[in-house]
Amino acid sequence: MNFKEQALKAHKENSGKIEVNSKVSVKNNEDLALAYTPGVAEACKEINKDKENSWEYTSRNNLVAVVTDGSAVLGLGDIGPEASMPVMEGKAVLFKEFAGVDGFPICLETNDVDDIVKTVKLMAPTWGGINLEDISAPRCFEIERRLKEETDLPIFHDDQHGTAVVAAAGVLNALKTVNKKLEDIKVVVNGAGASGVAIAKLFLDLQVNDVIICDSRGVIYKDRQDGMNWVKEELVEITNKQNITGDLSDALQGSDVFLGVSKPETINKEMVSLMNEDPIVFAMANPIPEIYPDEAKLGGAKVVGTGRSDFPNQINNVLAFPGIFRGALDVQATDINEKMKIAAAYAIAEIINEKDLNSDYVIPDPFNKVVAKQVAKEVAKAAVESGINRKPIPETYK
Amino acid sequence: MNFKEQALKAHKENSGKIEVNSKVSVKNNEDLALAYTPGVAEACKEINKDKENSWEYTSRNNLVAVVTDGSAVLGLGDIGPEASMPVMEGKAVLFKEFAGVDGFPICLETNDVDDIVKTVKLMAPTWGGINLEDISAPRCFEIERRLKEETDLPIFHDDQHGTAVVAAAGVLNALKTVNKKLEDIKVVVNGAGASGVAIAKLFLDLQVNDVIICDSRGVIYKDRQDGMNWVKEELVEITNKQNITGDLSDALQGSDVFLGVSKPETINKEMVSLMNEDPIVFAMANPIPEIYPDEAKLGGAKVVGTGRSDFPNQINNVLAFPGIFRGALDVQATDINEKMKIAAAYAIAEIINEKDLNSDYVIPDPFNKVVAKQVAKEVAKAAVESGINRKPIPETYK
Repeated sequence: MNFKEQALKAHKENSGKIEVNSKVSVKNNEDLALAYTPGVAEACKEINKDKENSWEYTSRNNLVAVVTDGSAVLGLGDIGPEASMPVMEGKAVLFKEFAGVDGFPICLETNDVDDIVKTVKLMAPTWGGINLEDISAPRCFEIERRLKEETDLPIFHDDQHGTAVVAAAGVLNALKTVNKKLEDIKVVVNGAGASGVAIAKLFLDLQVNDVIICDSRGVIYKDRQDGMNWVKEELVEITNKQNITGDLSDALQGSDVFLGVSKPETINKEMVSLMNEDPIVFAMANPIPEIYPDEAKLGGAKVVGTGRSDFPNQINNVLAFPGIFRGALDVQATDINEKMKIAAAYAIAEIINEKDLNSDYVIPDPFNKVVAKQVAKEVAKAAVESGINRKPIPETYK
Repeated sequence: MNFKEQALKAHKENSGKIEVNSKVSVKNNEDLALAYTPGVAEACKEINKDKENSWEYTSRNNLVAVVTDGSAVLGLGDIGPEASMPVMEGKAVLFKEFAGVDGFPICLETNDVDDIVKTVKLMAPTWGGINLEDISAPRCFEIERRLKEETDLPIFHDDQHGTAVVAAAGVLNALKTVNKKLEDIKVVVNGAGASGVAIAKLFLDLQVNDVIICDSRGVIYKDRQDGMNWVKEELVEITNKQNITGDLSDALQGSDVFLGVSKPETINKEMVSLMNEDPIVFAMANPIPEIYPDEAKLGGAKVVGTGRSDFPNQINNVLAFPGIFRGALDVQATDINEKMKIAAAYAIAEIINEKDLNSDYVIPDPFNKVVAKQVAKEVAKAAVESGINRKPIPETYK
């Protein structure tokens, strides 16, 4: 069997990848009387007295909806809700495996922002959190912003922030290996979709002095006329301090970090050589990166990361989202804010101790199970420090 | 610990009753490559070619949404979506335990018919079937009707049809013990809510000659002015052949079967004595029946059933809904039609063989695991006979 056949078999042999199980036994009338009628009425009545009790008596405290409209799935694009389901199930599998979170797919037959927001809001009493997934830009920004404003659940668009958090973790460590500081570097982000925008914002929040963001038409600058949208208009207010114009090469000139979330082979070694000394190159397009590690190194790159598991420094969202939701759920946070994302980035970076750190090891292995635990702990603390927790920090996190 | 404390503990100790688990292993990069990227893309592409492939490559073929707005929960009434969650989780537990179906709660923050219908329709690509639960009448009728028309999923409002199917099964067997035939009997249904309406319709479909339905104001008849709604207006066209008027006692006069889905202690032995010889009394109000079995028997009742586990002949929905969905999912039925419900009723009745059948044993024990299997088989066959199956009948059902 070739890889394709193996992958299809893995999906077909058990008819998908997730199941719903009972946490209680119902083997006889006594069990049934406690878990179902009449006993269940006691739990209903407690929640009817105070809705907040739903966090104690139901599974919602551990349930995260993985919501998509199937409009930006992997590199496949707008393949619709049915075809996106395998990815959402995969996400649910990872949630459970890495952080004990009960993720569940919700695939929606609409691309309308209002419809998506309304549907999620109407379902809100079922969930402890909402993971938005594979929703195309710029709609994803508005959907996330509105759900953050209009619900009191932690809302997290993984394509944006998962990638941003892990890339930030890698850069935090990479900077140590080249002796540079966040406040001194210039960062170039290539790609102004979901993850590009989130990366730019997170790096600014990390006190990076200058971030320049490019799209397929080149640098995004004030008064650019073509290919703009409201998100890019917002971005020009906070990025590109010198308001430079031109193409990606112009942006790379004198920069320290390249973060690609764009297309295969968009940069070459000559472009890398335009960057400052000891450049850091994260080429995260998948499966074919913006530049392969060998070529980036020929251009002078000191630290190279990709989205692939067959090269060093894999930037893999699984390092972030399971622990972030674990931490948010553990203190019943009402949001996932910037402080929590920054805490997650530092937690991931700090998994690697100084003596192990080197240019080929700035990001922990995705299967290192300590990561999600540390991320959860730091995210939970950050939520408590932000005052957005419903529940105190668990004893084990202190 | 008293019963209330035990019930609350059962809900609190594991934080609710359900969890989401993976059916595949993700212990290393090879696993991850098959179940998630890049392997998952192969499943996505197959479904993108043809949506129908979603039934093979995803879990939807076994996923049933348990959808409520929390407006008619147990005897508690309109307690809202958060407080209804323990019941929906309980239903999911029963789905899995009795029929291997993956049920999942969806509790909605709205009582608006359009909103509920739209939300379920938008989520439809996620599911193999929709179980409506604890939605108040008459909205539940419209929601079910519209979802049946506007989706190609099996839709089933358990409060209506689950009760109707099990009550029908009990009556089928009870009639054998008193030597009466469906076409000769007069049935009185007390209660014109979700289950009362469904019972009346199912008994008419079973070729019962006359069904009279009463509500709290008495018999429902043509030209009655007060306490009517569109469902009752529909019912008077098909029930109450003689168009009798009056109260429940007037209806019971000369009837053979009483089916109560109303309130505690609404009939007494004098009223039972108004019925024909060897009356059948199913007093299904819970936990306090319309009449206790002892008193019903003093009035002459030959077969008595209740909703309780501590009396003979418990009318318990769990005998119906797990097997009905199992059968519908196994042939990927696009509906749950009358033929399938009737098949379920006969399947439940036929679990009890002639020599075991007696007035205290007309309904199988809810924990008899053979029931769901038989129901599934007969329901699947009925779906195939109706031509509403996407998939042929499993070999094991032949």
